[in-house]
Amino acid sequence: MSIDVEAQLSDLKQKVENMQPGGEPKLSMIVFSGELDKLLAAMIIATGARAMGVQVVQFFTFWGTAALREPSVNVGGKDFMSKMFGWMLPKGRNKLKLSNMHMAGMGTAMMKDLMRKKNAPSLDQLFEIAAQLGVQIKVCEMSMDLMGFKREEMIEYPNLEFCGVATFLAEAKESSIQLFI
Amino acid sequence: MSIDVEAQLSDLKQKVENMQPGGEPKLSMIVFSGELDKLLAAMIIATGARAMGVQVVQFFTFWGTAALREPSVNVGGKDFMSKMFGWMLPKGRNKLKLSNMHMAGMGTAMMKDLMRKKNAPSLDQLFEIAAQLGVQIKVCEMSMDLMGFKREEMIEYPNLEFCGVATFLAEAKESSIQLFI
Amino acid sequence: MSIDVEAQLSDLKQKVENMQPGGEPKLSMIVFSGELDKLLAAMIIATGARAMGVQVVQFFTFWGTAALREPSVNVGGKDFMSKMFGWMLPKGRNKLKLSNMHMAGMGTAMMKDLMRKKNAPSLDQLFEIAAQLGVQIKVCEMSMDLMGFKREEMIEYPNLEFCGVATFLAEAKESSIQLFI
Repeated sequence: MSIDVEAQLSDLKQKVENMQPGGEPKLSMIVFSGELDKLLAAMIIATGARAMGVQVVQFFTFWGTAALREPSVNVGGKDFMSKMFGWMLPKGRNKLKLSNMHMAGMGTAMMKDLMRKKNAPSLDQLFEIAAQLGVQIKVCEMSMDLMGFKREEMIEYPNLEFCGVATFLAEAKESSIQLFI
Repeated sequence: MSIDVEAQLSDLKQKVENMQPGGEPKLSMIVFSGELDKLLAAMIIATGARAMGVQVVQFFTFWGTAALREPSVNVGGKDFMSKMFGWMLPKGRNKLKLSNMHMAGMGTAMMKDLMRKKNAPSLDQLFEIAAQLGVQIKVCEMSMDLMGFKREEMIEYPNLEFCGVATFLAEAKESSIQLFI
Repeated sequence: MSIDVEAQLSDLKQKVENMQPGGEPKLSMIVFSGELDKLLAAMIIATGARAMGVQVVQFFTFWGTAALREPSVNVGGKDFMSKMFGWMLPKGRNKLKLSNMHMAGMGTAMMKDLMRKKNAPSLDQLFEIAAQLGVQIKVCEMSMDLMGFKREEMIEYPNLEFCGVATFLAEAKESSIQLFI
């Protein structure tokens, strides 16, 4: 009988281990929105979690991908539609608008000014901190294809990956926290 | 003492079982938004998860319920307010607007055109795939009542259910992934 | 050997306990949005969960903080920017707009009227119910500082706390449900 107990015990242990992968909690976040305020929230949560020892994977999709564009890069050879989207979407994280109170730019400018005065970190700084802390960023290939963005247009970020929804779901399944922003 | 060990073991087993219901991971999703881009994201995530063997329950509420209207159905006997809401809200998933860049219809039309060209699945196709894969759809009764929608106005979908917030919460409690879209 | 079994058993028990803190499920919710419809959803989910025996912690941040302002309170000594934000942001939960169909106030007024007719609880009532049921509300200090809100401007609510993102993450890590609204 003691063998039976040991077998059951080992079986249970395995199950418990599987429930806490690596023993480290993980946060999976879909960054769907492309507005300044939502991006700020996403990056503050991501860097905060990482600072607390939580693994963080961000999956940028749809409007979120536009926030990852590197403003200084210009890529040729795009078809008409891709050019149109390229012009209409904000070029990188310094061109994002507030989701509320944008007011033809005045609200957004006020908010940025205020953040500087209060010493709140800017999006630029938050991406830098994220890179230093090891927040993983993955970009949705389908969204990039749809909007006509090319890989070389994306910001330089350590280990930036391009992937599909399956990759996000595989991460989300073994995460203890998931957020859609 | 061995009896004590067995009792403790069986107790633990029960607790572990309760933590992983059925052994199969589950995704519970609140579809609150009624915009084309958000609906696309919701359906791509739902069908993707289902394809990976994850149980999926979608709970359509507020603006999301308007996306589930069957355009060809007209129901009479509505009071004035319900008629007003019926007119103002998009009639079904082919009338939804983008949350960004709708631009009086041009942006939304461009996006739909682009999706066709890139062979990305349309919302119609995604709902069909969802039905085939067994994504469960539940509709918030309170929202339907508020906006004056009747059950016969909703799309035909296998095992479509009408329920309240308690049903969602019961599902969410035993899910490993929850999203609010 | 029986000692070894007991040690392993006790170790496992501890791990399982840690996975279900207090044995009670918990919902952590970020209330980022400040629109009437989103606030309604947040409060209906929160009170519903609490009624089902789930612990609920709401973390109000960004636009969500404006919804927590007490309309009757006026605080002096603010700098110019804080005054501007104070004027532009909705003053408390009775001034919130719908995220869709606001239509210069007509849509929002219609929705409120409809809710009264259908006996759906108002935001005022939902906050009262939340307080009675013991929904915990925490307010993001960084957002308050950014928008120039002072503590005495916030609504009276039992055990209202002011905190940072780390507090939310600590709650979220040990929650079985997390939502970003």
